[in-house]
Amino acid sequence: MSELNNYLEEVNAGLDPVLRTLVENAVAPRLTEAVKWSLFGGGKRFRPALVCASGEAFGVQREKLLRTSAAFEMIHTYSLIHDDLPAMDDDDLRRGRATCHVKFDEATAILAGDALQSLAFTAIADDQSIDFSVRVAIIRELSSAATKMVEGQQLDLDSEGSVSGIEQLRQIHRHKTGAMIVAAVRAGALVGGATEEELSIMTRYGDSIGLLFQITDDLLDVTGTTEQLGKTAGKDAVAEKTTYPALLGLDGSRDEARRVHTDALSALASLSRKTKVLTLLADFIMSRSS
Amino acid sequence: MSELNNYLEEVNAGLDPVLRTLVENAVAPRLTEAVKWSLFGGGKRFRPALVCASGEAFGVQREKLLRTSAAFEMIHTYSLIHDDLPAMDDDDLRRGRATCHVKFDEATAILAGDALQSLAFTAIADDQSIDFSVRVAIIRELSSAATKMVEGQQLDLDSEGSVSGIEQLRQIHRHKTGAMIVAAVRAGALVGGATEEELSIMTRYGDSIGLLFQITDDLLDVTGTTEQLGKTAGKDAVAEKTTYPALLGLDGSRDEARRVHTDALSALASLSRKTKVLTLLADFIMSRSS
Repeated sequence: MSELNNYLEEVNAGLDPVLRTLVENAVAPRLTEAVKWSLFGGGKRFRPALVCASGEAFGVQREKLLRTSAAFEMIHTYSLIHDDLPAMDDDDLRRGRATCHVKFDEATAILAGDALQSLAFTAIADDQSIDFSVRVAIIRELSSAATKMVEGQQLDLDSEGSVSGIEQLRQIHRHKTGAMIVAAVRAGALVGGATEEELSIMTRYGDSIGLLFQITDDLLDVTGTTEQLGKTAGKDAVAEKTTYPALLGLDGSRDEARRVHTDALSALASLSRKTKVLTLLADFIMSRSS
Repeated sequence: MSELNNYLEEVNAGLDPVLRTLVENAVAPRLTEAVKWSLFGGGKRFRPALVCASGEAFGVQREKLLRTSAAFEMIHTYSLIHDDLPAMDDDDLRRGRATCHVKFDEATAILAGDALQSLAFTAIADDQSIDFSVRVAIIRELSSAATKMVEGQQLDLDSEGSVSGIEQLRQIHRHKTGAMIVAAVRAGALVGGATEEELSIMTRYGDSIGLLFQITDDLLDVTGTTEQLGKTAGKDAVAEKTTYPALLGLDGSRDEARRVHTDALSALASLSRKTKVLTLLADFIMSRSS
């Protein structure tokens, strides 16, 4: 995986100064601190990598993708901050460090999440390297995905312990985590001027790796340790959450992971583009559960 | 004030179906319910009226302003939902009804606010009656103002009981409430193709009525009853918040209100546009404190 690691490090090296510039100017110092605490807390930056890998598959230069990447990371980070709140998942630990509301306080954590969301849209609106019509299209992707993510979180909260089956579980995850992953892939492709047909192939790829991401996340919660995860392990069972392992068993979940991984690769195979990094990303998610 | 009341009723009659369409399609029924509870809870819809009055001053048809108006109302409503949370102002009553987290629960209220924010940006991105470049400009105004609003709320929380003087108080309010009012006024003008000079006049008008709004709000908290306000009266004193009356006294605050009201009208006077409704709006805010 060293080729992918190099890629992720390169993306992060480009992304960091962009993110810092975007969050630097707040007049409320405590808010800036809280935003930085969560934004530079050692996340994988998986969504930015997807934006870049997708845009680059369509021939776009990295620099033209960094603000859009930053916007996706900001929305993702806001959702983690809010999900960790006592009224939600009530988690003290994230990426091996104190969560935002533990390090600061609940009010500041709520506001830091709120600010990250609006900052994300400013980041795209202000990106003068991208045509107005494409900026609007990306904002549409990101804002719709952000709404779906919230809907998924609500569905998850409302259904705890009573998910009827695999279809309902897929619906929850397609909203909660899948929509943002699909949108990241589509946003990169939009910057690259993808056709409608290419966009729909990218949507299939994104949908498959989104489901794959969730299946392997559920598997890791069962098989990983708190140290490996950087967050509390075994929480799903304690919270009586319906997960892939709970519905399909460990072996059944691994079969499902292989199935959607194959779907992702077959989508890429139908695209005449440089999809190597997108393949490595799918392989990386697959490898998490083994 | 019956001319203004008619205007506000007209705007609301146009706005309601637009808002309903924008929030109708959520897959999580409880989230939709919570969003509607707060969005259709009898608010004044003051920011939408500003967007419309400003756009109409520049000759724009009402219909072309309704999605932008809806977006401003959605951001405003999200901020009220989050401000009312136990970790923030901890308020049970808003517009004479239970606040969102009391009617539903804290997690749902957090998510309803989050969803309203992303829905607002989708509303503008999807507005096909407005050029791409103008949509981007409006999203920039709204997202920047939303960030400032959050910064102001943080400044307010961090400074409670220790605001050093009138300049710091103004800074807090220019962020907390002023930025969204200025942006609403500017967004209408942007749809109307206002020049840079006209935009800067509209900014002066917006800045003045934003301060006026806060001064009269502070005055009402002292002089109004809970029944009149539809929210708990006297909360500022209990929370030891620094307010205009606390810094300038009741008479001093009324003088300050008259001063910024005059500023607002003099900005409008320098604009060769149909500014009647904008004048009525400034007069209306002024009249709240008498």
